[in-house]
Amino acid sequence: MAKKLWGGRFSKKTDPLVEEFTKSIQYDYKLAKHDVLGSLVHAKILAKAGLISQKEGKIISQGLSTIWGEIKSNKFVFDKNAEDIHTDIQNKLEKKIGVAALKLHTARSRNDQVVFDTKRYCVFEGAHIIKLIKKFMGEIDNFAGKNKNIILPGYTHMQHAQPVALKNYILAYKYMLKRDSERLSSALKRMNYPLGSGALAGTPIEAEVYNKAAKEISDEMGHPFFGTVENSIDNVSDRDFVVEILSALSIIGMHFSRLAEDLIIWSTKEFGFVEIDDAFCTGSSLMPQKKNPDTLELIRGYTGKLYGNLVSVLVTMKGLPLTYNRDMQLDKEPLFDSTETIKKELMILAKLIKGIKINKDKIYQQLKDESLYATDLIYYLVDRKIPFKNAHNIIGKLVKYSVENDIQIKDMPESLLKKFSDKFIKKEIVKLFDPLVSVKSKRSIKR
Amino acid sequence: MAKKLWGGRFSKKTDPLVEEFTKSIQYDYKLAKHDVLGSLVHAKILAKAGLISQKEGKIISQGLSTIWGEIKSNKFVFDKNAEDIHTDIQNKLEKKIGVAALKLHTARSRNDQVVFDTKRYCVFEGAHIIKLIKKFMGEIDNFAGKNKNIILPGYTHMQHAQPVALKNYILAYKYMLKRDSERLSSALKRMNYPLGSGALAGTPIEAEVYNKAAKEISDEMGHPFFGTVENSIDNVSDRDFVVEILSALSIIGMHFSRLAEDLIIWSTKEFGFVEIDDAFCTGSSLMPQKKNPDTLELIRGYTGKLYGNLVSVLVTMKGLPLTYNRDMQLDKEPLFDSTETIKKELMILAKLIKGIKINKDKIYQQLKDESLYATDLIYYLVDRKIPFKNAHNIIGKLVKYSVENDIQIKDMPESLLKKFSDKFIKKEIVKLFDPLVSVKSKRSIKR
Amino acid sequence: MAKKLWGGRFSKKTDPLVEEFTKSIQYDYKLAKHDVLGSLVHAKILAKAGLISQKEGKIISQGLSTIWGEIKSNKFVFDKNAEDIHTDIQNKLEKKIGVAALKLHTARSRNDQVVFDTKRYCVFEGAHIIKLIKKFMGEIDNFAGKNKNIILPGYTHMQHAQPVALKNYILAYKYMLKRDSERLSSALKRMNYPLGSGALAGTPIEAEVYNKAAKEISDEMGHPFFGTVENSIDNVSDRDFVVEILSALSIIGMHFSRLAEDLIIWSTKEFGFVEIDDAFCTGSSLMPQKKNPDTLELIRGYTGKLYGNLVSVLVTMKGLPLTYNRDMQLDKEPLFDSTETIKKELMILAKLIKGIKINKDKIYQQLKDESLYATDLIYYLVDRKIPFKNAHNIIGKLVKYSVENDIQIKDMPESLLKKFSDKFIKKEIVKLFDPLVSVKSKRSIKR
Amino acid sequence: MAKKLWGGRFSKKTDPLVEEFTKSIQYDYKLAKHDVLGSLVHAKILAKAGLISQKEGKIISQGLSTIWGEIKSNKFVFDKNAEDIHTDIQNKLEKKIGVAALKLHTARSRNDQVVFDTKRYCVFEGAHIIKLIKKFMGEIDNFAGKNKNIILPGYTHMQHAQPVALKNYILAYKYMLKRDSERLSSALKRMNYPLGSGALAGTPIEAEVYNKAAKEISDEMGHPFFGTVENSIDNVSDRDFVVEILSALSIIGMHFSRLAEDLIIWSTKEFGFVEIDDAFCTGSSLMPQKKNPDTLELIRGYTGKLYGNLVSVLVTMKGLPLTYNRDMQLDKEPLFDSTETIKKELMILAKLIKGIKINKDKIYQQLKDESLYATDLIYYLVDRKIPFKNAHNIIGKLVKYSVENDIQIKDMPESLLKKFSDKFIKKEIVKLFDPLVSVKSKRSIKR
Repeated sequence: MAKKLWGGRFSKKTDPLVEEFTKSIQYDYKLAKHDVLGSLVHAKILAKAGLISQKEGKIISQGLSTIWGEIKSNKFVFDKNAEDIHTDIQNKLEKKIGVAALKLHTARSRNDQVVFDTKRYCVFEGAHIIKLIKKFMGEIDNFAGKNKNIILPGYTHMQHAQPVALKNYILAYKYMLKRDSERLSSALKRMNYPLGSGALAGTPIEAEVYNKAAKEISDEMGHPFFGTVENSIDNVSDRDFVVEILSALSIIGMHFSRLAEDLIIWSTKEFGFVEIDDAFCTGSSLMPQKKNPDTLELIRGYTGKLYGNLVSVLVTMKGLPLTYNRDMQLDKEPLFDSTETIKKELMILAKLIKGIKINKDKIYQQLKDESLYATDLIYYLVDRKIPFKNAHNIIGKLVKYSVENDIQIKDMPESLLKKFSDKFIKKEIVKLFDPLVSVKSKRSIKR
Repeated sequence: MAKKLWGGRFSKKTDPLVEEFTKSIQYDYKLAKHDVLGSLVHAKILAKAGLISQKEGKIISQGLSTIWGEIKSNKFVFDKNAEDIHTDIQNKLEKKIGVAALKLHTARSRNDQVVFDTKRYCVFEGAHIIKLIKKFMGEIDNFAGKNKNIILPGYTHMQHAQPVALKNYILAYKYMLKRDSERLSSALKRMNYPLGSGALAGTPIEAEVYNKAAKEISDEMGHPFFGTVENSIDNVSDRDFVVEILSALSIIGMHFSRLAEDLIIWSTKEFGFVEIDDAFCTGSSLMPQKKNPDTLELIRGYTGKLYGNLVSVLVTMKGLPLTYNRDMQLDKEPLFDSTETIKKELMILAKLIKGIKINKDKIYQQLKDESLYATDLIYYLVDRKIPFKNAHNIIGKLVKYSVENDIQIKDMPESLLKKFSDKFIKKEIVKLFDPLVSVKSKRSIKR
Repeated sequence: MAKKLWGGRFSKKTDPLVEEFTKSIQYDYKLAKHDVLGSLVHAKILAKAGLISQKEGKIISQGLSTIWGEIKSNKFVFDKNAEDIHTDIQNKLEKKIGVAALKLHTARSRNDQVVFDTKRYCVFEGAHIIKLIKKFMGEIDNFAGKNKNIILPGYTHMQHAQPVALKNYILAYKYMLKRDSERLSSALKRMNYPLGSGALAGTPIEAEVYNKAAKEISDEMGHPFFGTVENSIDNVSDRDFVVEILSALSIIGMHFSRLAEDLIIWSTKEFGFVEIDDAFCTGSSLMPQKKNPDTLELIRGYTGKLYGNLVSVLVTMKGLPLTYNRDMQLDKEPLFDSTETIKKELMILAKLIKGIKINKDKIYQQLKDESLYATDLIYYLVDRKIPFKNAHNIIGKLVKYSVENDIQIKDMPESLLKKFSDKFIKKEIVKLFDPLVSVKSKRSIKR
Repeated sequence: MAKKLWGGRFSKKTDPLVEEFTKSIQYDYKLAKHDVLGSLVHAKILAKAGLISQKEGKIISQGLSTIWGEIKSNKFVFDKNAEDIHTDIQNKLEKKIGVAALKLHTARSRNDQVVFDTKRYCVFEGAHIIKLIKKFMGEIDNFAGKNKNIILPGYTHMQHAQPVALKNYILAYKYMLKRDSERLSSALKRMNYPLGSGALAGTPIEAEVYNKAAKEISDEMGHPFFGTVENSIDNVSDRDFVVEILSALSIIGMHFSRLAEDLIIWSTKEFGFVEIDDAFCTGSSLMPQKKNPDTLELIRGYTGKLYGNLVSVLVTMKGLPLTYNRDMQLDKEPLFDSTETIKKELMILAKLIKGIKINKDKIYQQLKDESLYATDLIYYLVDRKIPFKNAHNIIGKLVKYSVENDIQIKDMPESLLKKFSDKFIKKEIVKLFDPLVSVKSKRSIKR
């Protein structure tokens, strides 16, 4: 049985099944560096508060710094039998510096530590994700720039609607990502790393000591580091910050599932608008011709996982009385999983988009569909003083006639056109069936 | 069959089952006033753009203003057979002002309208919820003030942990609500009501016209009203703003489920810490003695609905290709339902908290539990230079001895205490078993 | 304030907000007929147990029968101010038969009633859904029969894979529905309507009386009606039967979302494999040419609601201590909503499928894609003793050559083919690029 | 880059990020033994069909049997760089038996393999879970038997309702588990392991060959092994069987969350009804007195994960067109995770329940609460011909008087009692305030 941070009052060993069931080291090892940082700050506070001597403070800090270095250089070997990362680091510190380590846990609790660690994880990984979003947004810009003259059919209900610039189509995703980034960013701003909550009731150290230590660390680090806790009970009890991140990541996943769907549909044989680079596709063990957009399918599919992770933490937190309950340990796997997933997806998409080949021929073939210009025909009539709803009705009938009689509007004689509206002048009408004319006539939007 | 905004090209009537299945008037009638406002703005734009005459613009505006008045005074009778609220209002406008109404739909689409309406609903209802949160936070402050001297056992894992001030306990919820309010508020800031997307591709009206109209309306209204759309495809395609609101409301619901659970547990016979006012309880049809905290139970239970609504929209949006798809109509019922639920809960909780009676006797009986002061005993030893982990171990054993021998620590002779640590001085120790002393000693937190 | 089934011990009126918040008549009115039936049975039991006289039993039964008739003929006007349907019916019974009604609630509780009513709702509606599934399965059979000779490209990863019979494609959905029906059916078999739980602890009436009454009713009704409760605490506490139904309905919704997606994709301009009948499509208020598959889009979209309803009840039930808690009232809206949704979707799909027009030309154009026959080329080599993995590799290279050099395999000279494998004999190879040959060669499956 | 089962037509290597992102060996290694079994059967079929020689069949079978033995004895080292378990096993087989292995993949596809493997996993693990449920049900029976004479307050709305036997309380969970087991069992019955789907279109081998092989294997194994596929497209496309299992496991988790909640509440200081054995509790790093019911809290908390896993697969499957899409690979992690979780919980609970100590004193103190007997007082009046609703009202007033005047009903003089009803005879009334009398009077339920 592994060494624990508690146990004095227990007369019986933990059941091995329970030890396995309750431990978290297998995932919370990811918090290691944040945990060490928290301990470094805490040691500083203990020394300031006189709860350890300056010398002890120094010994502890040196021990922690060594561990920090080991973690950074991947030399730290996690003890799979430790209850959690806090215990693992504490045990290793004891081995390194001996008795001084026994004082480090003064005036703190794992309840407090784990919130600190998890928030710092969120802030760091969140910032990383924001950077990856920016990078992907840049690639979207590049893609838009490279293909700025391409027009394709715009779809509503997956049916041909009106011609749109491919540039605008793809930039729609950039605007989604911009909000995604802002959403994440404002979630991170709501986070801080307060110290001094203890298990739930606070600690005997003056708030002022925490504040001073925080200030010093901010100066050292060059960015603000938060101090006293506002409400210690709230601090150890709540996980709304985890839910908020998971929700923001779910929304990103939702956006990506749509981008993936668009690209998957566009790369079907029938659409054929784009080709995804070999490097992002895989084949079939049976059908040798297959080149499947697996990467995009998995991005679409992982939406399930991202939503599931969000649901998981929401459910776990439902109805828990204050303050800390062990259930709350289960916030971490979903958080880590969604974070890793989105990071990978962003890195992959930023590369994938670069390799997309556009098949103009297939696209322009679709742009010949006259129905794409029906709205332009309405505006033609509206410009000639036909009330919109009447014009809508006229063009509806014209389209129906065209479909039922299998004749293109462009090919109808003027006399026939005039039966629908005497405003129609054939030589004017025919010019409207042009994707560029159509797109340019939409003056409400940026081009 | 009801009059529709489309149909020219159709040769067959909609199947009655389908008409029933696809219509949305039964819930989107809630968007009525926002829809009329959008139309008022649009009419102004059409006139500016010269697509309708000044006179037509005036007629339309007057018609819409009349409808607006009817909605405000609950005189507007929704047509249950209309396809949706946009159609209903358009049809009523036609009845009122005749032919001029036929021009209102120029250069716009329901895809665009519905985004405008829904965003404005979010902004208005969101602001209302923020106000209700503030009110409830005020009531929490009142409750905390009224009970500022009460101490109760603090719990972790639902077990006695350390004494805490009731004030701090309840204020934990205020801090949660503060973040809830900020979260909602930053979601609302990400929303605007852009015009000019048309169905997806933009409209023939210059962006400048939209901007000018927006500016004028801002001046009229005294608050900013947004103008040109940045990306029309994004604007009609995305519903991340709905998901973000539903997520923020789910988190509020999660917080409330915890408050409800706390109060329900505290009002059990066994705890007996509080009594909920009759006005918020109901009885049993069989057991006449019952006074059940039904209101709190339903608040706890509605968390399911709030989460379910979030999941519902996330799922609906998953994997939809751009741009608008009819699936997206299904964002509204969940949005409205969660909004209404949280509003009701906030109003009820603000009243309920006022009527809570505290049963000091039952609470103080629990504060006699010596184990609540075990951490204070550690600090006593730590102050006397025992390393924390050793002190933790000593007190663990002391507690175990106390439990197993059924003797209070307070009642142990000094000689016995000294067997655990020679630092123990009985007359000092006994003073520690005092809730006020314990709470005051936690100097890291506000009191 | 409405008349309630409780209240003796209360000194204060329920807060009007709370009355609104807690009542359920707005949705549980759907249980009316099941509630009356339960009361009829209960009255019979009371009489048998001697708790009411035979005469009272008769008066009550007559009163209830009248109400039953009113419900059946839609003449029963629900009292929107009643707390719930049980209260509403009780109040109406009192008005009808006076003092005898006051005895009906002897030895029962709403906790018990609501389980009875909800289970009976499930059993009845479940049976109805099973009937509708059968009907839809029949229509799938008809569709398959009508199109039994059509072959289309089969897809994996949305890419051309191998030719398949349209019949087999569509019958895949029939097999899903078959399991859906069996799943629902086995859920229903796990349900019964036990009586005698009271609020939680049972009633003073002998189990034997319940059993006898149940037997009599079974005989009257011609189908089994369940008797004594096995465990009264379980009976009033659990809602697993609701979750199970919601899960079964979610799976149906999942299947329908896939069918909808298939049909939506097939009815894009680019695929053009099918045309959905006008009666199941709607148009656009802006774009007169649009014919959108809205019905299918909503069926796809409602998956969100169905999943959300499942999540809702799962969450509500999470962590509730036994026995009945008011939270459990919130099982009904999701149950009713999912039930109604699936019923509508089944009715619509059974009609929609009849009106689907197949566009053979568009399909056969896609069948020309040689890559669909790559696996058949492998089997050609395998038959000629090339190990499968080698054959797979050879054909992979052949396909690659064909794509890169823009030459059809069919058009390659035998000399070129032989460079890939000397087994290739051109006149044999060319015969393989035939959808019918390909489909017929798959001898493992029914045709 | 790892060796793959495809690749002939690709000109570019897979991006390393993509390789990492798409592979599944890190979790699907759990399917290893099922995969080998499937291959053994497939080899037999190939030989029967003449696609490999008898000798080749034997070589392949021997190779696979060796691998099977390695897996069983944990000597099989999974190749972390393999794409998936199917590839890993295929590669190892090639190393072992050389060229014969190249023929094994004839007439099959990973699409087909993975369904076979996953279904067999479900059937085997499902059967294991059912066995564990039975074991836990047995322990519940033991617990009920051991404590058969203990009565405790029954709760509705967490308020004292009526006395119930502890035995019946705990047996309620047994009845839930019984349904859980049946639900799982009927899900498993809907599963089979059909062979011959190929990628989607079937294989060139006659259905009859599959059937014969299946029959032979059934005879060898002593239990039925399924044969020909009914619909190959359905077989490779659907994952309803995974969702159904995840739903059944979620319901078990829901039941456990309630049991956990009951036990956690009962082990609070305030209730104190039970004590959980040390072996299932953990302590605090700060508060040495703590003994926390962590195991139960985690069981309650894991409900989130179980629900999240269900949502995850439901979402992933939503809206996927037929047939196989790569998204479907993401069904496995949730399935494995929920399966492992429930297995662990069942093993732990079966042990935990044995160690529960009942604290009769604390329970019987609560049974003194007179309100628990209010319903018995009603039945007293009903027996004396007071209509139920009147009796309910009378006792309601009596309880209210008792509470407001702080006088026990037992202590009221008969004259006072008579003011509420002249039926009251004090010496009869006082006998009703007895838990055993109360429980025995509920004759509708088993004792």
